Amino acid sequence: MSKESPRAKFLAEFPELVQELKSELVRYGMPAEAIKWYEDSLNYNTPGGKLNRGLSVVDTYAILKGYQSVDELSPDVYKKVALLGWCIELLQAYFLVADDMMDQSITRRGQPCWYRVKEVGDIAINDAFMLEAAIYVILKKHFKQEPYYVDLIELFHDVTFQTELGQLLDLITAPENSVDLSKFSLEKHSFIVTFKTAYYSFYLPVALAMYAAGVSDPQDLKQAHDVLIPLGEYFQIQDDYLDCFGTAEQIGKIGTDIQDNKCSWVVNKALKLASPEQRKILDDNYGRKDAECEARCKKLFRDLNIETHYREYEEKIAQELKDKIAQTDESRGFNADVLTAFLNKVYKRTK
Amino acid sequence: MSKESPRAKFLAEFPELVQELKSELVRYGMPAEAIKWYEDSLNYNTPGGKLNRGLSVVDTYAILKGYQSVDELSPDVYKKVALLGWCIELLQAYFLVADDMMDQSITRRGQPCWYRVKEVGDIAINDAFMLEAAIYVILKKHFKQEPYYVDLIELFHDVTFQTELGQLLDLITAPENSVDLSKFSLEKHSFIVTFKTAYYSFYLPVALAMYAAGVSDPQDLKQAHDVLIPLGEYFQIQDDYLDCFGTAEQIGKIGTDIQDNKCSWVVNKALKLASPEQRKILDDNYGRKDAECEARCKKLFRDLNIETHYREYEEKIAQELKDKIAQTDESRGFNADVLTAFLNKVYKRTK
Ligand SMILES: [Mg+2]
Ligand SMILES: [Mg+2]
Ligand SMILES: [Mg+2]
Ligand SMILES: [Mg+2]
Ligand SMILES: [Mg+2]
Ligand SMILES: [Mg+2]
Repeated sequence: MSKESPRAKFLAEFPELVQELKSELVRYGMPAEAIKWYEDSLNYNTPGGKLNRGLSVVDTYAILKGYQSVDELSPDVYKKVALLGWCIELLQAYFLVADDMMDQSITRRGQPCWYRVKEVGDIAINDAFMLEAAIYVILKKHFKQEPYYVDLIELFHDVTFQTELGQLLDLITAPENSVDLSKFSLEKHSFIVTFKTAYYSFYLPVALAMYAAGVSDPQDLKQAHDVLIPLGEYFQIQDDYLDCFGTAEQIGKIGTDIQDNKCSWVVNKALKLASPEQRKILDDNYGRKDAECEARCKKLFRDLNIETHYREYEEKIAQELKDKIAQTDESRGFNADVLTAFLNKVYKRTK
Repeated sequence: MSKESPRAKFLAEFPELVQELKSELVRYGMPAEAIKWYEDSLNYNTPGGKLNRGLSVVDTYAILKGYQSVDELSPDVYKKVALLGWCIELLQAYFLVADDMMDQSITRRGQPCWYRVKEVGDIAINDAFMLEAAIYVILKKHFKQEPYYVDLIELFHDVTFQTELGQLLDLITAPENSVDLSKFSLEKHSFIVTFKTAYYSFYLPVALAMYAAGVSDPQDLKQAHDVLIPLGEYFQIQDDYLDCFGTAEQIGKIGTDIQDNKCSWVVNKALKLASPEQRKILDDNYGRKDAECEARCKKLFRDLNIETHYREYEEKIAQELKDKIAQTDESRGFNADVLTAFLNKVYKRTK
């Protein structure tokens, strides 16, 4: 089976979700132009990414149920679990539409950011709200009868708030147009990436699948959490590392974190290691929209052996996570393979 | 007792709510500057309005429980019901922070709009998200043990989505900088105001109080809905009327709906009555940032006797609502006084 297949299968569920949301608006008597607008926003902002988070929900569910592949799920079960995956993709769409406005980004996933589309502009704020609202329309329609319905809602609420907290700290720590490296630290980086990325990208897909599979004892959710949150942090540190040191072929884009004043692991590690003279180089050159400033930062990062420090961090964290996974208590039906699958996706990425 | 007192009593509950939200952030290990930011956003954006929606929750609850005044509620009960009122005020804060950005407004409640505050800017988008998220933190903390917990959550979700739908239709029907009166109609106006205003301002406070009071049979919720939604529409039509025909002393501000291209009841009624020549006057003058254009629109509204049409509408809808309220079935514990209290607030406002 081709590698495209799981993604294509998951994508094939999206049009029906859009139809369901449209029929809610029809039921409300909403005029046609507004229904069309919402449909366009859903289609423009929700699919089109890698869909890793959404796909993880069905993958995790299949592992928990003891299947070899998602193809062994009955069509009805697949559809239902895939909806939870799409709810994460809707949550991400909500965050990204807003993040692009706050970052004044130009493009996203190879097309103009939604707020940059003609006619949209600031209406994108309300469109972001409506992407979030779709999650709860879908949950109510498909999961209200389930004993874990409240758990799903609370999980989405909690993770949404956590992501917004991470976003807030990121926004006030690293505003694009005002460089102040005294606000940065490795501790703050850890908080930002844990809250902004790890909860919704790593913990949420697994926790959703666990509730749906009926493997959701608080101790098992905690076991998942305690591996997936540090794994999510590792993923983001890797992302920060690759932005600076990866080739364009490797990462599929040209890194801009240095010029964008990002609170990246790389600069935080450098700040920790720098002498006063080296610190001055960073203060004078980091976060400037200038290729020469950027090159001076990169040279300093090489002088400080950031690559070596990264490799050390990576081997250490990967080993810690492997050890923790090996100690998983599977007595209540949880399956550590779920966690190994996630670790392999991240650890592999470095090769 | 002074008229200020119920508001002061309600306001006195807010600082504790802020403390509770702050302690959530402390629990997460959030750095101090981000906690301070959230506290500032909560305090800047949530109180400061008339608090009618929040106050209505406690007033309605007291009536349903057979009390003469909210002062008869025990302190614990008052606190708990007031929290539901504050959740509406948080919902409104979320909408207003975003609405002001989308409308590019300058001031709100006598102070600069939040996004216009130095250092805030587009971060206000994420701040709006976090105002909404606060609702569910509060509900989870204080209502999770209640049998109506899911009802509260679903009610907030539904009303939030309805308000966003109304906002969307308003935004695409009446963009401030592109006048196209062919998009306007009384039917569209009715939809916009019902969804954008009536649900969260009229139905939501009563429905919340009904759940808290244990008077929430679907038939009773429907009785409340069927009066409060048309009442909310009437309130907004009155608001539109006063914006154009009220004196500055009456409404406490100078109306700007004509210059702002608002999809107001007044212009929609005029469009319905206008001859082709009169329509041309509107096409040429409505929605222009120009006092002479505005004066031409106002003259046309007078020529079309919009004030008389408004009086006729008002007497008709008030009588219809009185009749409907008189037919309320109180057999399951619902109390029509709840609805009369709302009608009196709106009908009185016109005098
Ligand atoms: Mg961004
Ligand atoms: Mg950002
Ligand atoms: Mg990156
Ligand atoms: Mg506005
Ligand atoms: Mg507006
Ligand atoms: Mg008005």
